[in-house]
Amino acid sequence: MSAIRPLLRYQNARSRLRQPRGLASSVEPLRNSPQAPPPGDDHVRIVEVGPRDGLQNEKKAIPQHTKIELISRLARTGLTDIEAGSFVAPRWVPQMAGSDSILQHILTSPPQSPGPINFSFLAPNARGLKNAQEVLKLHTLDASNRNTIEISVFAAASESFSQKNLNCDIATSLERFKEVIQGAKAHDLRVRGYISVVLGCPFEGRDISPQRVAEIATNLLEMGVDEISLGDTTGMGTGPSTRSLLKAMHAAGIQNEDIACHFHDTYGQALVNTAVSLEHGIRIFDSSVGGLGGCPYSPGATGNVATEDMVYFIDSLGMKTGIDLPALAEIGEWISGEIDRSNASNVGKAILGSRRRRAGESKL
Amino acid sequence: MSAIRPLLRYQNARSRLRQPRGLASSVEPLRNSPQAPPPGDDHVRIVEVGPRDGLQNEKKAIPQHTKIELISRLARTGLTDIEAGSFVAPRWVPQMAGSDSILQHILTSPPQSPGPINFSFLAPNARGLKNAQEVLKLHTLDASNRNTIEISVFAAASESFSQKNLNCDIATSLERFKEVIQGAKAHDLRVRGYISVVLGCPFEGRDISPQRVAEIATNLLEMGVDEISLGDTTGMGTGPSTRSLLKAMHAAGIQNEDIACHFHDTYGQALVNTAVSLEHGIRIFDSSVGGLGGCPYSPGATGNVATEDMVYFIDSLGMKTGIDLPALAEIGEWISGEIDRSNASNVGKAILGSRRRRAGESKL
Repeated sequence: MSAIRPLLRYQNARSRLRQPRGLASSVEPLRNSPQAPPPGDDHVRIVEVGPRDGLQNEKKAIPQHTKIELISRLARTGLTDIEAGSFVAPRWVPQMAGSDSILQHILTSPPQSPGPINFSFLAPNARGLKNAQEVLKLHTLDASNRNTIEISVFAAASESFSQKNLNCDIATSLERFKEVIQGAKAHDLRVRGYISVVLGCPFEGRDISPQRVAEIATNLLEMGVDEISLGDTTGMGTGPSTRSLLKAMHAAGIQNEDIACHFHDTYGQALVNTAVSLEHGIRIFDSSVGGLGGCPYSPGATGNVATEDMVYFIDSLGMKTGIDLPALAEIGEWISGEIDRSNASNVGKAILGSRRRRAGESKL
Repeated sequence: MSAIRPLLRYQNARSRLRQPRGLASSVEPLRNSPQAPPPGDDHVRIVEVGPRDGLQNEKKAIPQHTKIELISRLARTGLTDIEAGSFVAPRWVPQMAGSDSILQHILTSPPQSPGPINFSFLAPNARGLKNAQEVLKLHTLDASNRNTIEISVFAAASESFSQKNLNCDIATSLERFKEVIQGAKAHDLRVRGYISVVLGCPFEGRDISPQRVAEIATNLLEMGVDEISLGDTTGMGTGPSTRSLLKAMHAAGIQNEDIACHFHDTYGQALVNTAVSLEHGIRIFDSSVGGLGGCPYSPGATGNVATEDMVYFIDSLGMKTGIDLPALAEIGEWISGEIDRSNASNVGKAILGSRRRRAGESKL
């Protein structure tokens, strides 16, 4: 975490933190770190995965208008990347049925947003891509629509997880993705490649080879994927194992700007692992508003790190996300209520609790 | 966080993390860090504050036998420091009524434990100390009892917090503590001095002077206090502000071995702040099993960082606490059930959830 040290020094040189937000500014270069970003690279891109990764495991059916409302609200916060749906067979993931109409909605009635947004849709196979393309053919992005559409594929870092989730080994899954990736690129769509269980597998434990992860990532990048998202699906990642993985990625010649980190807070380590990744020069992180998305491998446990917590942490280091944190906290509370679960964001609960206290006091 | 870097390097040189526990071993010396502990100083002392700080704000009366059972269970996990009660007037903190009989129980029927335990009791004033001493006079620690009893006092870092919680300004509170500290020392009791709201106050915000905190700490140490616990009562502390505070403590000539850090996870920053403190050379941390203790300044928000999360994090760096993490996770779940609140430990929920999943699978 040595590169956090210059960030801390930088922060100390400024006036002390008075507000959770609004302190973003340029930071010192990250010394001693491979592929250290150039001075001034203090911007962190957050990929909001709540509407897809967050909602997909919810048991109770979520109305289509709630999903669209969630995307619309998120679009107004300053987020630039939103994972919006999945073209997976509804019999596998019933919650994602209707992603075609979500894509159609985004194309025909682009949500209001301060800037362009990249909307991502998972397409696990050629069939999924074909379904997405049918919508795209009917409703092409016209010049007035500043947004982009991205297709994503989902590989696994362990053979057991690949077999259980994709019904094939890793090599076969990569072979299948080739068609999806080439098809998407032929239509000028950006492609994201997720690799799950990179720091621990529910079936194989913690012993995931970082070199194997780097090899899968290299394969995906060579097929044309624009960005790799390294998923710590089980939340087993620690500071040391995160660092080993990122070193292996670097050793394999993969650039930091092609890597996103996707941490789960199952064991409370998501922000520690984020600190290690920031040190390494990573500037793209996935997170989920309200911490949407549980951990199916540990019932009752926490899943995706909450976007509120991530934005608060990055702000606290004096770095920038461009995201309106109080607005995000309200969305996290709202969607948690809509789907009848408790808000899993510490920061969200603290911001809203503190507001309630002040409101209570002003009534006295 | 530069000192975490050698820790990570050290960890990487070993076999990769397979188990959450059992990796404790000596670490590289912390370079570039003031008062860096000598090589091999990889031991972290955890002060369990659940039975006092954790339970004191619970609204529902907790039966005395539950409090004693909690202390007995904690004593068996390898914890060396347990905050057991408070000699505060019951009309102020009704939940702490009966601390005299808890002290008596500890003296007459010492809980089973693998090693000696330091049991701490808060004594806010001379009256509190007198009540504690009356119990101690009747039941002196005999030679067969390896445990020690500690008295603690509780100051604040902001004038507003001092006025609201102690009904006097900081200077007056320190004057009152002098009598308590001298009285305790006269009876060979160890004394701990808490300073609350060191990184943010619910009434004055984030702008707490680190120099003022260091000044209060110096006063307490000069009065005879053996250890200062720096309390981030509101959880507003960030990596940068934690670092500023510890630098101010160092500049004031206060030794790291006299400092404990007490973080709240209200904004999810407790482990990040712990990482910064470990880098600085701090090796004593307060935490609360099951995350007992909410945040009265932000209703519904998280309070004390959970001991389970703290132990897991320290283990993940290859450092030692000597505490049985699975046993701790069970205690966190048990006490949460007893007082009818949800378990606030991510690690506890993940360990127990993972166990439930495996048990479910083995039944199939």
